[in-house]
Amino acid sequence: MRLSELSERSGVSTATIKYYLREKLLPPGRRVSATQAEYSEEHLRRLRLVRALIQAGRVPVATAREVLRHVDDDSLSRTMRLGAALWALPQTNPEPLDGSDAETAAATQQLEELLSRLGWSKAQEIGSLSPSYQSLVTGLATLLRLGFPITVDLLLPYGQKMHEVAESDLDLLETLPSDGERVEWAVASTMLFEPFLISLRRLAQQEESARRYGY
Amino acid sequence: MRLSELSERSGVSTATIKYYLREKLLPPGRRVSATQAEYSEEHLRRLRLVRALIQAGRVPVATAREVLRHVDDDSLSRTMRLGAALWALPQTNPEPLDGSDAETAAATQQLEELLSRLGWSKAQEIGSLSPSYQSLVTGLATLLRLGFPITVDLLLPYGQKMHEVAESDLDLLETLPSDGERVEWAVASTMLFEPFLISLRRLAQQEESARRYGY
Repeated sequence: MRLSELSERSGVSTATIKYYLREKLLPPGRRVSATQAEYSEEHLRRLRLVRALIQAGRVPVATAREVLRHVDDDSLSRTMRLGAALWALPQTNPEPLDGSDAETAAATQQLEELLSRLGWSKAQEIGSLSPSYQSLVTGLATLLRLGFPITVDLLLPYGQKMHEVAESDLDLLETLPSDGERVEWAVASTMLFEPFLISLRRLAQQEESARRYGY
Repeated sequence: MRLSELSERSGVSTATIKYYLREKLLPPGRRVSATQAEYSEEHLRRLRLVRALIQAGRVPVATAREVLRHVDDDSLSRTMRLGAALWALPQTNPEPLDGSDAETAAATQQLEELLSRLGWSKAQEIGSLSPSYQSLVTGLATLLRLGFPITVDLLLPYGQKMHEVAESDLDLLETLPSDGERVEWAVASTMLFEPFLISLRRLAQQEESARRYGY
């Protein structure tokens, strides 16, 4: 398809598409004349992912380019490709508090115990290489530093629920036809589905509070 | 206790405490002389919440003041007080995309069907009054606008899991001794626990991916 059709079908203006092409967020079309290029269904799909990252997810252009580099790296195994793309995304960290060294050590110990009790042995092997692991340590250290009485017993059911969520996530991925599409959906769903899950939790809290205590 | 002891026990500098007092994020101490005031355990607890909001959660001062106003409003019912405090917090919305009117209508319909199938009748009654409901509509509309094949069947297990999470949340709240402490924990845990849950999900995805596909 021509640029105008790509614009129409995607709902993205031609100016914005040209900007994405210049920024190498979208691969060039197949040149058919000096002034025209031909775009494919893959361009349409990639455009969707770029918008999920840049427009909906407010990810900086340089970060998006890094994420897409991993999405396209089919030399990696499926887990590594997923991991590399997701690890390049912005993490959702609370700001670390000053002087939390003791709490960081305690948080690391709690997290290790939590992972053991959850039976997440692969996550334990990857350990602090994973930005998610590091975010969990920072988040826990902040809660401990502020004096909240967090225990592994308290965290355990949350870990179990999130494991069930991750199983649903991967079941869904497996319905997609190619590894390329799987990693694209994994990235888009991380950006767009995380706020959705959080809002679902908040709405469920309102439901549950109204059930238990009335309005 | 004196300001110096409040500073020592909280780990917050006296300059920062004075700033919070000026900004009315912390109620004034009980004046004991022209130059000295006496602070209580409640100040210590409130300071913890202020830090959770401002330092760890990066909430603007005006927003924090609004949240605290609701936390302190014991004229409200428990559900309303919790709701008002949480509704004043920043929402985690994806940026809405241009020209999503048709998708917004479709998203609203999907959300209503989802809430019916989940049996969340209270949430349906509150409806679009709740910022979480509005966030869910925006998030769904964005996913639909980008052409992702989202269905109610797909969303249902996520809603069920988040309801179980909310039950754990409220069970935990009920272990706290007073309504004031409950609403404080609800606010702090929203700010600090949401990123923690999200990171847990990402780590669970890595665990599950490594289990299914190896490294």
